[in-house]
Amino acid sequence: MNIGILGTGVVAQTIGSKLVQLGHSVMLGSRTEANPRAVVWAKEEGGNALFGTFAEAAAFGEIIFNCTLGTASLDALRQAGAENMKGKILIDLSNPLDYSAGPNPTLSVCNTDSLGEQIQRAFPETRVVKTLNTMNVNVMVNPTIIHGDHDAFVSGNDIEAKAEVINILKKWFGWHSVIDLGDITTSRGVEMLVPLWLRLWGVIDSSRFNFKIVS
Amino acid sequence: MNIGILGTGVVAQTIGSKLVQLGHSVMLGSRTEANPRAVVWAKEEGGNALFGTFAEAAAFGEIIFNCTLGTASLDALRQAGAENMKGKILIDLSNPLDYSAGPNPTLSVCNTDSLGEQIQRAFPETRVVKTLNTMNVNVMVNPTIIHGDHDAFVSGNDIEAKAEVINILKKWFGWHSVIDLGDITTSRGVEMLVPLWLRLWGVIDSSRFNFKIVS
Repeated sequence: MNIGILGTGVVAQTIGSKLVQLGHSVMLGSRTEANPRAVVWAKEEGGNALFGTFAEAAAFGEIIFNCTLGTASLDALRQAGAENMKGKILIDLSNPLDYSAGPNPTLSVCNTDSLGEQIQRAFPETRVVKTLNTMNVNVMVNPTIIHGDHDAFVSGNDIEAKAEVINILKKWFGWHSVIDLGDITTSRGVEMLVPLWLRLWGVIDSSRFNFKIVS
Repeated sequence: MNIGILGTGVVAQTIGSKLVQLGHSVMLGSRTEANPRAVVWAKEEGGNALFGTFAEAAAFGEIIFNCTLGTASLDALRQAGAENMKGKILIDLSNPLDYSAGPNPTLSVCNTDSLGEQIQRAFPETRVVKTLNTMNVNVMVNPTIIHGDHDAFVSGNDIEAKAEVINILKKWFGWHSVIDLGDITTSRGVEMLVPLWLRLWGVIDSSRFNFKIVS
């Protein structure tokens, strides 16, 4: 499958490398035609690893991952272009973290709205599925590095899109438990989980942990 | 021990009954001298169960539980009186849930502040420990109704107060795992977890669940 990834940071590269390893063709998109991090990544990953602009990556992908910084996501998606994402699944991994006020970031949107909802409203013909934003990227693509069961969440308005994303999480990334929280407004809950994740990171002193719902 | 509980709702009554069963003397406090729910509760629970005003319950308790609605907590605590809580541990179970906008409540404070912090700032001579706000009250006082390990969190500035509260959670309520998140600013994370809890409640269709940190 051809997959477009918006972003060139650690999350984008780690997701991209995993997808290339699975045999997919992956294009990392950025503000510029040849972002240095994307160029290096593509060279390391070989022929199925490509780079381009946000618009080129979005047009390339049958499925698109949003791995940009949350505070820059809406701008990046506008550069990607509504036409290039029309009808496609956009897997939104981003978190609206604002580090401007000190070491403990705040959320730039929360409580009565969420980044997932903002993205869905801005691109109504794209099928937005929020997922995997509640963990470290190494856990996203390799959940078995954590011992014992733990959960991923999905939020989105399009039931078929969510089913396809759940399938991707299970078949490609090896997830056992994925909880469908409901429509895109449930993005609020998973985005607001991130401040607790960040404080737990400090306590546990490792990013290799996740939440498990026990009943 | 003499324990004061601010509030007369389900959380206050359930915590109160558990503490009476453990042999403690408990006073439920409310806005009025003889809140009907507190009167009925005290009659059912027997001689160690008392009722009174917020101020009387705070003065009575060697330890105080805040089980009021979050949006009413600061006002209730002002009625309880700083002098009556001076030097004492205040175990804050409240959540700043605002139901005015529809079925999915929002938080009346979050992100850059929290109710736990507001309470600590308003009563600097009281040792505020935020805990147990991330679960149903039946799980709070009887964690073994959930199968498998799961976690409680504590947040607070006073290390000795937190140690005492952790001891209470373990010895009185039967908790095995209690995670000390850090100072009272970590109340933000646990209060912001509640919107996710509420959506999970809808999905799981039972309030008998909790979060486990798996690493």
